[in-house]
Amino acid sequence: MSPPVVTLLTDFGPYSEHVGALHAVLVGADPRIVRVDLAHDIPRGDIRFAAVVLERLARRLPAAVHLAVVDPGVGTARRGLAVRLADGGALVGPDNGLLGPAATALGAVAAVVLPAHPGTAATFDGRDLFAPAAARLALGDALEDLGTGVDPAGIAALVVPEPEVAPGRVRAEVLGSDRFGNVQLAARAGALEQAGLRPGARVQIAGPAGRHAGTVGRTFGDVAPGSLVVYVDSHGQVALAERGGDAASRLGARAGDIITVAVTPAPAP
Amino acid sequence: MSPPVVTLLTDFGPYSEHVGALHAVLVGADPRIVRVDLAHDIPRGDIRFAAVVLERLARRLPAAVHLAVVDPGVGTARRGLAVRLADGGALVGPDNGLLGPAATALGAVAAVVLPAHPGTAATFDGRDLFAPAAARLALGDALEDLGTGVDPAGIAALVVPEPEVAPGRVRAEVLGSDRFGNVQLAARAGALEQAGLRPGARVQIAGPAGRHAGTVGRTFGDVAPGSLVVYVDSHGQVALAERGGDAASRLGARAGDIITVAVTPAPAP
Amino acid sequence: MSPPVVTLLTDFGPYSEHVGALHAVLVGADPRIVRVDLAHDIPRGDIRFAAVVLERLARRLPAAVHLAVVDPGVGTARRGLAVRLADGGALVGPDNGLLGPAATALGAVAAVVLPAHPGTAATFDGRDLFAPAAARLALGDALEDLGTGVDPAGIAALVVPEPEVAPGRVRAEVLGSDRFGNVQLAARAGALEQAGLRPGARVQIAGPAGRHAGTVGRTFGDVAPGSLVVYVDSHGQVALAERGGDAASRLGARAGDIITVAVTPAPAP
Repeated sequence: MSPPVVTLLTDFGPYSEHVGALHAVLVGADPRIVRVDLAHDIPRGDIRFAAVVLERLARRLPAAVHLAVVDPGVGTARRGLAVRLADGGALVGPDNGLLGPAATALGAVAAVVLPAHPGTAATFDGRDLFAPAAARLALGDALEDLGTGVDPAGIAALVVPEPEVAPGRVRAEVLGSDRFGNVQLAARAGALEQAGLRPGARVQIAGPAGRHAGTVGRTFGDVAPGSLVVYVDSHGQVALAERGGDAASRLGARAGDIITVAVTPAPAP
Repeated sequence: MSPPVVTLLTDFGPYSEHVGALHAVLVGADPRIVRVDLAHDIPRGDIRFAAVVLERLARRLPAAVHLAVVDPGVGTARRGLAVRLADGGALVGPDNGLLGPAATALGAVAAVVLPAHPGTAATFDGRDLFAPAAARLALGDALEDLGTGVDPAGIAALVVPEPEVAPGRVRAEVLGSDRFGNVQLAARAGALEQAGLRPGARVQIAGPAGRHAGTVGRTFGDVAPGSLVVYVDSHGQVALAERGGDAASRLGARAGDIITVAVTPAPAP
Repeated sequence: MSPPVVTLLTDFGPYSEHVGALHAVLVGADPRIVRVDLAHDIPRGDIRFAAVVLERLARRLPAAVHLAVVDPGVGTARRGLAVRLADGGALVGPDNGLLGPAATALGAVAAVVLPAHPGTAATFDGRDLFAPAAARLALGDALEDLGTGVDPAGIAALVVPEPEVAPGRVRAEVLGSDRFGNVQLAARAGALEQAGLRPGARVQIAGPAGRHAGTVGRTFGDVAPGSLVVYVDSHGQVALAERGGDAASRLGARAGDIITVAVTPAPAP
């Protein structure tokens, strides 16, 4: 029989004691729980990026309990949820949008509101509320035993802004970037196709730090070192990279900024 | 039968090769050992903060071997210890104060001094001395087989300074802060009570970066975004936070600094 | 029977989602795979340092599958390899030099080139190519089933520059440094011996930030706080440390810089 799997995704910082506290709760419940750290370097409080990462990593795993805590509203009225997924797995975390994309992608079939511990100040629900619930679900407790049933259709959705697409032009918000300075846009592969921006097209990339020349490509090797490439990344998102460099720094691009990729006009004949 | 559990707490930096080396020793001894990273982002050489974190996380786990290495004195005369705890678990690490609070909280029933490897320069005792000892204890070796018995009462204690408490006023040292800029003071919940600082009280917070207005609260949501709250954190410590911000930066508060929280005088009638 | 072990070493950043994606692939293949993070804080694209770390950590483990991804050339023509080792373990990663030292140290007995997935843009071979291959090897698939056999003698070697050694003098390149500011040189213990630099010798250390006095020692405790020590580190490499300080900052030493350690001339009589 396959051991229970619990994944962890937080903005607590890699191997801070807060991450350790979640692991301690899970191991305390049963050391045989297989714990999988998905990411802990999510920018502080960036619910949107965390939600996108959770959704795409959860889809790659077999049925598992996904414990996600990016919770700038801890200590306010936002609900804590446990959600049963169509594949038999579950989501556990604050109902602030974080769980929305994964619930939609994996199919939420039931949900309960987790009761706050009476008399406990809610400053670390990750440890005191969510991790214990995740452990119980991993060990086979019924979802219904964890809280009060609510309509899973009411799980907070997340507004990921749509790109603006016109012939030869895509305008989109920055979702986030990684250690390599690769910038991910809130636009899927289809946006490039719809705009007619095909591999090889020369483009201008406009962002907070001005305008930069780039090329649409399939991968980093399609451009020269130091050049910018617009590509569809391994998650199917439109992304920007500088080969051997750091596109996020070069473009001054941070989460929420607007980037416009537009085909460079052909020179006058 | 439950698998053996070894926790790891260091100041080596999250997923540096030094952390990997400890894991390699444990897995090399037996891949079935359940390894739990408690924290690896302890500020370099901050024995006091590490000791506090070790104590509070160890208390949340069932009997386990706790391998802790914050060891600025490696290569000097400080002893290496393995300590048997009342619950059947153990502590392993340098006898520099790091193990003191956990030994007291969990009850040290026996201790041995670990022998240095003859001829080996002691520059990485974590890998060469402490991790192998932790693995042996996890796999069932007797404590007495690991070294020379010593009185567990002699384990180096750690001086955590006491707060000064007066009516309407608590003065305490900063223990540390986290990624969220929450500042933890060397004062327990009782200090606030004793000073008569109750939720709702308006206070002045004086630290290295001057004086700031704040409010005593139960949780972050008790104050407006951008405001400072004095609260009892999830470990029972008095702490300072800025809702949605970074109290450590705002207060200029670093480990060892002094912070005074004092009730704001009522305005003259 | 011992469970299969897969180690992970990348430059993805500690607990970034890219590391999580590799774990997700492994757990998705079989949650019973024992996953060991060796290091994820390798400086971005530093193949050489990663290769050195991989070799020295792999040697400390029993037969395991070592998944290593430091791959600045992803999306270019470099090959992806799986390598069978003499101990029954394996190496999986890009053939860019990263695998060379471990293949030599552990003995490469067979190798295959991993086929790229047709139609997939190669922007995340770690997740799409290397992790699945590592999982298959861990679960017992034959190496030959993973790709096209190639001569293991053709695995890209890594040029680690040799130190220049003269009486009383060692000149070597910096391999890297750690969180403690300890600087590792591309020189083995024998270089110090050959130069006649013995513990106790007073030396001058010349690097990018000028000249500094130091002492050859066995360990940190051999010098006063704030003083520089030249020693043989726990891996057998010549290294530089400042007791209680940060030698890398003080010397301005970064990977690839040249450091000269030379005996201080005796004062004129």
